[in-house]
Amino acid sequence: MPSATYRSLLHTAVFKDNSPFSLHLAMFIPAILGQADEEQRKYWMKRASKMEIIGTYAQTELGHGTFIRGLETTATYDPKTEEFILHSPTLTAYKWWPGSLAHTANYCVVMAHLYINGKSCGVQPFIVQLRDEETHQPLPGIKLGEIGAKLGFNTVNNGFLGFDQHRIPRNRMLMKNAQVLKDGTFKRSPNSKLTYGTMVYVRVVIVNGMANQLARAVTIAVRYSAVRRQSELKPDAGEPQILDYVTQQHKLFIGIASSHAFSLTAKWLTRMYQKVTADLEKGNLDELPELHAIACCLKAVTTTDTSVLVERSRMSCGGHGYMLSSNLPQIYGLVTAACTYEGENTVLMLQTARSLVKAWEQAQSGKRLSPTMSYLSEKVTSRQKWDNCVDGIVNGFRQVAYGKVESAVKSIRKYVRRGLGPEDAWNMSSVQLVAASEAHCRAFLLSTYKSEVDRTAGSLSQPLKKALNYLVELYAIYWALEKVGDLLL
Amino acid sequence: MPSATYRSLLHTAVFKDNSPFSLHLAMFIPAILGQADEEQRKYWMKRASKMEIIGTYAQTELGHGTFIRGLETTATYDPKTEEFILHSPTLTAYKWWPGSLAHTANYCVVMAHLYINGKSCGVQPFIVQLRDEETHQPLPGIKLGEIGAKLGFNTVNNGFLGFDQHRIPRNRMLMKNAQVLKDGTFKRSPNSKLTYGTMVYVRVVIVNGMANQLARAVTIAVRYSAVRRQSELKPDAGEPQILDYVTQQHKLFIGIASSHAFSLTAKWLTRMYQKVTADLEKGNLDELPELHAIACCLKAVTTTDTSVLVERSRMSCGGHGYMLSSNLPQIYGLVTAACTYEGENTVLMLQTARSLVKAWEQAQSGKRLSPTMSYLSEKVTSRQKWDNCVDGIVNGFRQVAYGKVESAVKSIRKYVRRGLGPEDAWNMSSVQLVAASEAHCRAFLLSTYKSEVDRTAGSLSQPLKKALNYLVELYAIYWALEKVGDLLL
Repeated sequence: MPSATYRSLLHTAVFKDNSPFSLHLAMFIPAILGQADEEQRKYWMKRASKMEIIGTYAQTELGHGTFIRGLETTATYDPKTEEFILHSPTLTAYKWWPGSLAHTANYCVVMAHLYINGKSCGVQPFIVQLRDEETHQPLPGIKLGEIGAKLGFNTVNNGFLGFDQHRIPRNRMLMKNAQVLKDGTFKRSPNSKLTYGTMVYVRVVIVNGMANQLARAVTIAVRYSAVRRQSELKPDAGEPQILDYVTQQHKLFIGIASSHAFSLTAKWLTRMYQKVTADLEKGNLDELPELHAIACCLKAVTTTDTSVLVERSRMSCGGHGYMLSSNLPQIYGLVTAACTYEGENTVLMLQTARSLVKAWEQAQSGKRLSPTMSYLSEKVTSRQKWDNCVDGIVNGFRQVAYGKVESAVKSIRKYVRRGLGPEDAWNMSSVQLVAASEAHCRAFLLSTYKSEVDRTAGSLSQPLKKALNYLVELYAIYWALEKVGDLLL
Repeated sequence: MPSATYRSLLHTAVFKDNSPFSLHLAMFIPAILGQADEEQRKYWMKRASKMEIIGTYAQTELGHGTFIRGLETTATYDPKTEEFILHSPTLTAYKWWPGSLAHTANYCVVMAHLYINGKSCGVQPFIVQLRDEETHQPLPGIKLGEIGAKLGFNTVNNGFLGFDQHRIPRNRMLMKNAQVLKDGTFKRSPNSKLTYGTMVYVRVVIVNGMANQLARAVTIAVRYSAVRRQSELKPDAGEPQILDYVTQQHKLFIGIASSHAFSLTAKWLTRMYQKVTADLEKGNLDELPELHAIACCLKAVTTTDTSVLVERSRMSCGGHGYMLSSNLPQIYGLVTAACTYEGENTVLMLQTARSLVKAWEQAQSGKRLSPTMSYLSEKVTSRQKWDNCVDGIVNGFRQVAYGKVESAVKSIRKYVRRGLGPEDAWNMSSVQLVAASEAHCRAFLLSTYKSEVDRTAGSLSQPLKKALNYLVELYAIYWALEKVGDLLL
């Protein structure tokens, strides 16, 4: 593994687009580690860690991404031969998107709908050999290809995968959680929430990735702005560095502050993830819903903000930012994809909103709330006096979030009173629910950024501490001005 | 010409990216028509209109885009041979960006700094043969190449062009405006503002282009949302069209309204352009500054909004929008480029701001203002009562613009009182100035959209009229909510 990780890091340092081997490390190996039983894990990790086999992970299909229950690929157990028969019954059942599937991978973890004796046993993971290890030709019953050119990730050979009654041995189902015995007996997973961990982990990684990609983009743009000279601020005074234009500073400095805010928030989130994972191993699931809720909105808000700020950095370089030689278009290609993969952003915002509505109702009935939502139980009786400092802005944002959750809940109740079912009332209120989720996330980002800088500032030099405090202040004031309407309402 | 135009339109209908011949029609021919004298025009148009020669237009250099006076390419007149010597004295003097320059064009209109007897005579246009008409090889003293891959326009072969003491005959300077006689006498252009017309025209074309590109993007996304089904709104009710999700409607319908608003505004702007051009021919320049001011901010705001809305359309298609087969990434590549070319957006916003500040000062001294700015002379004594209809929102936006212009002017004056020079005070206030310019443009877009729909609605069927009025209302309410903070302040 270290050698493979090293190779991947080296790639990132040298090349501008992603590595076709990154899915092997980021998805294939974690899937084996997380979902294979002891014997399977030993067998497959021995080969995968040395990269004797190259794997990827296939879940999304042409017809289904968000709605996992809708996946159409079937794995039908045949107890006579002790095999699973993998099949793609329709065109929309084709696996679609897995990176490295089109050219690079010869193995794959495939998520498929398991059927035993005509009975559905849910979506389960299977490890499948796709290509001959010598000739690299697809095995019989396996159809593979490229999905075509994309906005980014063009080095990753995203592919499609269809099965035509393809048989694999019983032990190719990864059986750490659910199991199928030889006779076809299905043993359900003891706790379906245990697989949440990996999903949350990927979102933690994404928040950190956004901090890094944004740092790359804004560094390129700031350096360019220091080198590029254009026009005249004063007649005959020569052409200034474009960084001297206040509009240019206004475009770029918030990018620096945001990158720093996301980086510290990712560290906070990693610590929470580690704590929750340790609790999970002891059978304690108490904090999992809170982790899930905050990771969902953080993934959505940081990918959205990063996309906007990377584009702003790119455009601040004028035409030169439009050339691939600036690397800025490629960075945008990478970060905007993160708005869609691993949970589409609007879907994730509504996941957090569901937790917020639940917390709101718990607070109304006097229950204690988890720390990231505890402000929802502090009833805002009247508009508090505005306190013009970072902590005051944090308080302001919490009041905004409180107000938006309240108004979303009221909207749902209004529609229910008018006779709509709870699902339709939810849908009719979904724009407000997303807004509530965003407000919650902004309050969290801002307070975490402030408290993490305060917490770690002790060990820093005075000049560095001062610079970091400027960034925190800039971040708070920037967002207070962006959301001034919410703060005033 | 008709055949060339037809060919270009055909290209746009069939291909996803731009034509390498578009610069011939959009820049080379208009430059000849606008800047060649009678004899030159006849000679060159005969060849250009039949596409016997393929031309492009080279102004921007590696080192200079916005600041035209900073262009470094020189054209030195040699009266002994009656030739101009074109030269690129530095690397940054290389022409950079002209479409079709790298592979397609064999002629080019080149903007170069004219020197006669060591004296600068400003930047002038020259028509230059780049390549042998038979072999297509660059002529001696001419260095040509590709600038490399870009975010979009990759079919357009944007190129670079350097000159090494390259000589061209005297009659290759386009002499409709300024002239150089055989003996080297320089005759200045009678009115330098006459060349403004073409620049404004291109911006009118851009506003219309944004309406069309946005229509393409949002049509793709709405159709996809009608075909794509995902998740469940209600348990076991089957997967709904994703257009049934209110969040999806919220993302897309504003794109339809904006496209329509931009289209009608472009028509209004075209009529104003035609009137001003007719006036110009009679020597009347009165309305040119107003046309310039409104065209600048409209180009900037419509390209910015279109970029945001095209990306929103793309992302509303999930992963499928990320594939080039959706055509959405290419549309984004085309529209985001328009934020930079033909006047970088921040630069243009500050151009409009300059007119607004001037108008503000004229209003203070009791002068009558041009129609698009007349609201600045209607002193807002106190916050008017909110009128919750489209006209009320238009009034609200005018009050916002009034307030933002006022506060920008106050900011400039404050810095001047503190001892800053006018240019530094302007720079320090530039973020507010851009905001004033945007507010002015939003008020204008909204009022024009409303009045143009009202003006043309008479001839429409009732159902169509109703649908269009919904769009106007949506556009007004959307922006009122986006800018609620400004409206409340």
